[in-house]
Amino acid sequence: MAEEVILLDVWASSFGMRVRIALREMGVEFDLREEDLSNKSPLLLKMNPVNKKIPVLIHNGKPVCESLLIVQYIDETWGHESPLLPSNPYERARVRFWADYADKKIYPAVRAVFLSMGEDQEAAKKENIECWKVLEGELGDKAYFGGERFGYADVSLIPFYSWLYALETLADSNIVEEFPKMASWAKRCMQRESVAKSLPDQHKLRDYIMEHRKKLQAQ
Amino acid sequence: MAEEVILLDVWASSFGMRVRIALREMGVEFDLREEDLSNKSPLLLKMNPVNKKIPVLIHNGKPVCESLLIVQYIDETWGHESPLLPSNPYERARVRFWADYADKKIYPAVRAVFLSMGEDQEAAKKENIECWKVLEGELGDKAYFGGERFGYADVSLIPFYSWLYALETLADSNIVEEFPKMASWAKRCMQRESVAKSLPDQHKLRDYIMEHRKKLQAQ
Repeated sequence: MAEEVILLDVWASSFGMRVRIALREMGVEFDLREEDLSNKSPLLLKMNPVNKKIPVLIHNGKPVCESLLIVQYIDETWGHESPLLPSNPYERARVRFWADYADKKIYPAVRAVFLSMGEDQEAAKKENIECWKVLEGELGDKAYFGGERFGYADVSLIPFYSWLYALETLADSNIVEEFPKMASWAKRCMQRESVAKSLPDQHKLRDYIMEHRKKLQAQ
Repeated sequence: MAEEVILLDVWASSFGMRVRIALREMGVEFDLREEDLSNKSPLLLKMNPVNKKIPVLIHNGKPVCESLLIVQYIDETWGHESPLLPSNPYERARVRFWADYADKKIYPAVRAVFLSMGEDQEAAKKENIECWKVLEGELGDKAYFGGERFGYADVSLIPFYSWLYALETLADSNIVEEFPKMASWAKRCMQRESVAKSLPDQHKLRDYIMEHRKKLQAQ
């Protein structure tokens, strides 16, 4: 039986980008279905009834939810020859820690800068810079977060880095210049076809985020 | 070389309980070191400089942080004969989803009931019941969340269930009776030595939580 792989996604979602990158790293062909979050499809509601969120990977009719769990599923299903996660348990825990850091620290910090204004935004900017500083220190002189090879932590983090350009416009900061090691890492990541094809155009993303911000602030 | 396994922990922490259960499931001997969170030890700050939180597992001098990542590390290091996670990638994603649900839904819902008062608490109680209802439905007629065997999702969820007794006292609810399948599941879990030894006495936990609540509300 031919494999059926469907991805329910939204183009601007950093969480969705992770899944697209992982699938392309593995050379898996997939049917990308764009969702309208203001009018979620019956398929999305059926496949992720608990969280009702994208991304959802549907593999031969069975759903896998939550981006980091999907990336691990992809690795365990198609990654035997060239896995995203290392084999050593300690190294696995280490890259999982940085993926978890993306969700627990980076995402809220970036989001806070976008949604805040005035003094609140100044505080959010400082907090955001502190969060990225930790990553700059962790990366050090390594090519990727896992070492010499592009892997799980990179897949998890690079979509958030792609938001920094929009952040610079908005918050008048030079966060990209401030962290030269992260900037080189991002360039290395972007040289991979899997990443370049999965991250949206920066200008398009910035316009979308600005529009989205206005709507949320108006509420 | 003999293995050195140290766990930095706090007895009342649901996150710490997960790690204790997993270590005991594997028959790993460990040195349990109680932390005072108002005066964190230099070892904790050194071993978890990013989050500065318990639990931290230190295995032969190397730290592993974040409870779900620690449980997976324990499984990958000592679980070859009787693993906590299933081997099938889809089943792995499924049990990981419910462990993730414990962190993203159950923990905030339980916490909100404890920290709120009056009308806010009524709303928090309703939300909390909705969260547990999802688990009751998912468990269905299975013995454990993964099926016939006690495993990763159970390890992740049972410490939060142990908080429900304190919640009943506080919120005058009968949440335990309301979900009979979860109640039977919890009894099955508690019959395991690993679980019984790792969860604190309910009365002691309730007193601690009530005291903690007063302090937080006073702030």
